Amino acid sequence: MNVSKKTTLVAAATLCFALVGSAIAGSHGGGEAQKDAAEYRQSTFTMVKHHFGIMGAMAKGKIDFDAETFARNAEAVAALSQLAPTGFEVEGLSDDTSAKAAIWKEKADFSEKMTAFQDAAMNLAKVAQEGDEGKSKAAFGAVAKTCKGCHTDYRTKKK
Amino acid sequence: MNVSKKTTLVAAATLCFALVGSAIAGSHGGGEAQKDAAEYRQSTFTMVKHHFGIMGAMAKGKIDFDAETFARNAEAVAALSQLAPTGFEVEGLSDDTSAKAAIWKEKADFSEKMTAFQDAAMNLAKVAQEGDEGKSKAAFGAVAKTCKGCHTDYRTKKK
Repeated sequence: MNVSKKTTLVAAATLCFALVGSAIAGSHGGGEAQKDAAEYRQSTFTMVKHHFGIMGAMAKGKIDFDAETFARNAEAVAALSQLAPTGFEVEGLSDDTSAKAAIWKEKADFSEKMTAFQDAAMNLAKVAQEGDEGKSKAAFGAVAKTCKGCHTDYRTKKK
Repeated sequence: MNVSKKTTLVAAATLCFALVGSAIAGSHGGGEAQKDAAEYRQSTFTMVKHHFGIMGAMAKGKIDFDAETFARNAEAVAALSQLAPTGFEVEGLSDDTSAKAAIWKEKADFSEKMTAFQDAAMNLAKVAQEGDEGKSKAAFGAVAKTCKGCHTDYRTKKK
């Protein structure tokens, strides 16, 4: 990877933070916006789930722990966690969603839980980079806990 | 944002590069793996499309150009471009896919086109950060061209 690429991606990743809580210009009005938002967040969590599945299989001993693979997947989840708030920017529900309206009624609490997920995901990426199996698995468990913490209050069913 | 968070995300983003062309451990066997891969790539491009839509609306003058918003969306696409190859790691097609089998037959060409997309997306993020409307729109056009370049050969229909 050349320096220019690295610098650009670093800037990109850093600025992903700016997406948190920001309004997206150009959103459609009415139900279309809610549908788009639902698709965006479902997409985000489908990708998170993929990377989570690999780390989970290692955490449960279903497949051998491989520090490099674990770290790559942890880093992908960390990056996706920064995009996750985008899918919740448009208020309200579409027909095909598992999100609860409480997300926008309890904004402060939801935002706190989202931040907890992001913090845990970034900690996981950091810990996983060090390559220690026990610590990596513990940090993974901490992220999984933040998923559950939010799903309990803000998701109607398991998709 | 504190330094620790920034450092972690920087590391995360940098290591996303490592995902390119790497095999994902823990993949399921048979059709399930192809289905998961299709869902992953569809999710990636659903998210890309969201960010692209906002930039596209500005590029076409449908909404006013806002340098900050444009840059945020450019950066999201750059980050997602680094995850895109993950959805093509498992060879073969699922029932619900627009991908062509040629992706894995013409690996070198596909990989070249994927890299062209990633390079253009990262260039866009860099250019957009500078805030110049004309240059931002031109860089956006260059990314759109790489999308088309790949879709022509490797996607069966518009989803």
